[in-house]
Amino acid sequence: MNLAMVGLDEIRTAATRPLVFTAVQEALIAHAEGRTLAPPPVHLMFPDANGDCHVKAGHVIGARHFTVKVATSFYDNPQAGLSSNNGAVLVMSATTGAPLALLADDGWLTAWRTAAAGALITHALTPADVRDVAILGTGVQARLQIEWLHALRPLDHVKVWGRRAEGAERLSNDLNAVGINADVTSLADAASTACVITATAAATPLAPAEAFADARHITAIGADMPGKNELPPSLFSAASTIATDDHTQCLDHGDFGSAVRAGHVRPDCDTKVGTILRGPYSRPPGSSIADLTGIGVADASVASAVLDSLAGIAIR
Amino acid sequence: MNLAMVGLDEIRTAATRPLVFTAVQEALIAHAEGRTLAPPPVHLMFPDANGDCHVKAGHVIGARHFTVKVATSFYDNPQAGLSSNNGAVLVMSATTGAPLALLADDGWLTAWRTAAAGALITHALTPADVRDVAILGTGVQARLQIEWLHALRPLDHVKVWGRRAEGAERLSNDLNAVGINADVTSLADAASTACVITATAAATPLAPAEAFADARHITAIGADMPGKNELPPSLFSAASTIATDDHTQCLDHGDFGSAVRAGHVRPDCDTKVGTILRGPYSRPPGSSIADLTGIGVADASVASAVLDSLAGIAIR
Repeated sequence: MNLAMVGLDEIRTAATRPLVFTAVQEALIAHAEGRTLAPPPVHLMFPDANGDCHVKAGHVIGARHFTVKVATSFYDNPQAGLSSNNGAVLVMSATTGAPLALLADDGWLTAWRTAAAGALITHALTPADVRDVAILGTGVQARLQIEWLHALRPLDHVKVWGRRAEGAERLSNDLNAVGINADVTSLADAASTACVITATAAATPLAPAEAFADARHITAIGADMPGKNELPPSLFSAASTIATDDHTQCLDHGDFGSAVRAGHVRPDCDTKVGTILRGPYSRPPGSSIADLTGIGVADASVASAVLDSLAGIAIR
Repeated sequence: MNLAMVGLDEIRTAATRPLVFTAVQEALIAHAEGRTLAPPPVHLMFPDANGDCHVKAGHVIGARHFTVKVATSFYDNPQAGLSSNNGAVLVMSATTGAPLALLADDGWLTAWRTAAAGALITHALTPADVRDVAILGTGVQARLQIEWLHALRPLDHVKVWGRRAEGAERLSNDLNAVGINADVTSLADAASTACVITATAAATPLAPAEAFADARHITAIGADMPGKNELPPSLFSAASTIATDDHTQCLDHGDFGSAVRAGHVRPDCDTKVGTILRGPYSRPPGSSIADLTGIGVADASVASAVLDSLAGIAIR
């Protein structure tokens, strides 16, 4: 059995922020150019255990690896002292079909590639002079979106809003602790910031469209499966640019899809995130929205880069 | 990291034939009764490497585990001294979403659960007095179909036909070596046997419908993805019983689907394999066909039983 089991400590040594940024950017561009295998994700629901599972397969055509990622969210886990999120990434050879490694990442690679994708497109679409950002949501992904964006564009001030005041307080403290100037604010104040990032599990829009009138760019991260919706559908009709990481997925279960179904925008009005990242891209006047649902190709690209990096470390 | 890596040697000690038969029978019955999660399988194609990959997730509702199985077939592997088939089964907790074990089975659990499902339905639908069987195909699965059926119903004589004479000769020898009386024969002779099992990778029917006129039961194993077809579509219109392991999959890419699309039978004329296995079931007069495409729920049930068995072994 030549199958390696790679634990989180080892993964952390390899999955540096530059490595993840590079791998995710490459994946998004390849996906936009049609150079990927990206079958629709599989969802399993476990209502009795208040849990769900996503399985995403992905491959950048020509790459040595492909991956099958299993990501779970079991929402009662914290009551038993366990993390809600878990999962693992199986890395396979794209030349022999052999399983090569299982990355037992406790869901962190998903968190990091989501952070990277969000930060990359937020940075690309937010006007260069904007240094104030609002984050709606207070979970791990909310924190990562800010930290990773701060790595691309140093932020002057972060406004934090969350449904639960103590969560917002904690995130604000955590950001200040790593040198990012942050404060808790109201939903109305946060939504009217020049750059807004939403990373919640909301099933209905967080605020009416008018609340976002001053936002020049919004990145929506939360709607990763059917039934979730963060942004008011009518907001999309006011945007001059709508970017999606995967057209089909965003149409199926992203905020973009909610806007299309509500009749506010046409289903073909979106631009691929990878097209914008590849450039050259000149931002049209007006506001922009990026809707991210998470692509399996990014999992494949990051996992492959981690394996290659670990192999390099092992050789040295 | 509490994730166990279980290799093939360990899996072999646990995955006894009775354990696999029991687990697969339970899975097929649960699936027929709607007590399963069985999302559509994901297929990835790697044309440059002459390979493909199937990902199947499955869960018997109420069971402690669910599984995500990755199975690959890379057809040029033998030229490099590697097996064409490979894969692994990730076993997850259905109560916390935690990955529990990776069964690095080199594809054997899939082979065994396919053998079990085939043998169970062949035994259930073939008249009790029939002791002569023909096998079309000479690969690993062809051999397993005969060996596992022999375990349920001792066979007097097995006729072996294969596209390549040397393959048929080898399978015949292998069967005789384990005490099963077998001979190589012609396609016409094999197809006219009372019980016929097909386990080939055929993309077009193996023989015209008339060739199967004397077959009282046929089990078709080979068509596991779009583009494959073993049995002539018109054969289905003559059958009094058509059994499918998964209605949707068989309609999509089984021989049953080919018959439906050719207009020979209605899409709702099939009976669930699990309904027949659960019984009571009285076989109507006439001939029967079982079309198996392989269900992820069987993978889940077998993998779960293997893990439980290994835990029991460890405790003793």
